[in-house]
Amino acid sequence: MFRPKIKVLDCTIRDGGLLNKHQFSFDLVRKVYVALAAAGVDYMEAGYKNSRALFSETEFGPWKFCDDDLLWRLKDGVENAPKMSVLVDIGRADMNAIKKAVDSPYQMVRVATYAKDIDKCIALVNTFNDLGYETSINIMASSRDSGPELDEALDQAERESKADVVYLVDTFGYYYQEQIDAMVKRYRKWIKTKELGFHGHNNQQLAFSNTIQCIMNDVNYLDCTIYGIGRGAGNCTTELLLGFLKNPKFDIRPILDIIASDFIPMREKGDLEWGYVIPQMIAGIFNAHPEDAIAMRKGPHRDKYREFWERQIAAGLE
Amino acid sequence: MFRPKIKVLDCTIRDGGLLNKHQFSFDLVRKVYVALAAAGVDYMEAGYKNSRALFSETEFGPWKFCDDDLLWRLKDGVENAPKMSVLVDIGRADMNAIKKAVDSPYQMVRVATYAKDIDKCIALVNTFNDLGYETSINIMASSRDSGPELDEALDQAERESKADVVYLVDTFGYYYQEQIDAMVKRYRKWIKTKELGFHGHNNQQLAFSNTIQCIMNDVNYLDCTIYGIGRGAGNCTTELLLGFLKNPKFDIRPILDIIASDFIPMREKGDLEWGYVIPQMIAGIFNAHPEDAIAMRKGPHRDKYREFWERQIAAGLE
Repeated sequence: MFRPKIKVLDCTIRDGGLLNKHQFSFDLVRKVYVALAAAGVDYMEAGYKNSRALFSETEFGPWKFCDDDLLWRLKDGVENAPKMSVLVDIGRADMNAIKKAVDSPYQMVRVATYAKDIDKCIALVNTFNDLGYETSINIMASSRDSGPELDEALDQAERESKADVVYLVDTFGYYYQEQIDAMVKRYRKWIKTKELGFHGHNNQQLAFSNTIQCIMNDVNYLDCTIYGIGRGAGNCTTELLLGFLKNPKFDIRPILDIIASDFIPMREKGDLEWGYVIPQMIAGIFNAHPEDAIAMRKGPHRDKYREFWERQIAAGLE
Repeated sequence: MFRPKIKVLDCTIRDGGLLNKHQFSFDLVRKVYVALAAAGVDYMEAGYKNSRALFSETEFGPWKFCDDDLLWRLKDGVENAPKMSVLVDIGRADMNAIKKAVDSPYQMVRVATYAKDIDKCIALVNTFNDLGYETSINIMASSRDSGPELDEALDQAERESKADVVYLVDTFGYYYQEQIDAMVKRYRKWIKTKELGFHGHNNQQLAFSNTIQCIMNDVNYLDCTIYGIGRGAGNCTTELLLGFLKNPKFDIRPILDIIASDFIPMREKGDLEWGYVIPQMIAGIFNAHPEDAIAMRKGPHRDKYREFWERQIAAGLE
């Protein structure tokens, strides 16, 4: 599939950072950035732009805050540098620390929101847009909050926001291709003048095929992570996506190298868990948040799959 | 998705047996059979029906031969027993050892063939059919041998064979959903009076979504394996498929139990490798046989992914 408008956005450090409180070493993140540059990836999301007043610097690593100085160092001297993106949660950014885009090491700001918080999200997006940033609205949990509130949020995103992109986010790894097709068509009913994006989770081994479905449906902003690292089951893998896209600007080989040198050892070491993990698969089937499964995997009952299944059934009957 | 005609065929022992020369212990296979029975799975494929004259009994385990006595013991006293299936390769079965279906512990015989060998396959299938067995034609490597020979094979399978089912087999884990849709429609152009089946491989994490695509296209015989065990990247997982199908006769919980008790330890032990393995992913992208990647993973260059990628490029240029 060769469509020049397609943009690959790698969130290895941002979504993967949810596994280790954003404690990745500078050297690893630099290595990822250099690999993404060599691979021709369009964007790298380095982390969250959170206020230091809200999160402890002893508990969380530097990619939770993404100070400008840090990001300048990160990109220093890198050729063919991917644009840099940061994720912002509503009410958690220190707006005094935000410079104009021309003076900033990052070019894109993505704002994560629930459908019900769309007004606050739009206000924030428009502020960043006025500062010169590319912006996106990432509507989380659309498989759960999928009533009229979703249509209203999409309608407002189109009419009131200056966002460049509106994202369909499969927070719970719940969708399969037929549902993706229906959701993208629903988004398109409202979003007429902006690009669409997709961020999948891999609970049911469907993040890549759902991304393919999005490509078939003219979605152009595609999220992925190296070796699928990310919260819970993780994400669509960068290597699968680059292997699928036929745009000659992409080169999968630097990604293969860093998988071998860093991500396989990281996964095998075992203190960071992502991928095909049965409780995460169950959470995906039940359209449930990954946190319960994450907590269970850290406790003594990590392989009590039947119990976890039955707890989901019981929760549904409550 | 609740469609009563859907049949789930678990090939854990047969396809998984390719990892260990069919050396699974009787106790494990019995445990799998009991779990599949409790889960309401329709068929269990126990292995290959190969002649002892062709394969060494010291090298290969009992599931390479599937003697009638062994299979009788396997199913002895199991309630709600799944039908039993065996796979036959052309020219490798000892036809003198085949009884009539009414006197046999297995009910289904599946014959694996390349498109070019369809005449031999049909002769074998018709012999088994005349003995009273349910039969299928499993056309391997359709993503490679996909010229007019495939249409001819399908035409003959429809007109000349007594097979109940004709399988689309994604031997190399190459397809994604759009190709599956096109292939099933191509199969349907020829196969008018028989059921269709699908056997996927998971090189690109697409075996489950391709199986879903088949379900959407009215394919009714669906192969899977517990925790995805199988040659190379393995298969569509039984637990994902049962989680997707809404037929109340299925119960995922016995499968969850045996994953925890047996398949997680087997995978973690590490001498049997299957799943998302980068060289297998690469083989899938290149539509290549898994054997090269399997051999590479057993050697000293098991993580030289870039080399393996470049070797595939070179092979394509030869």
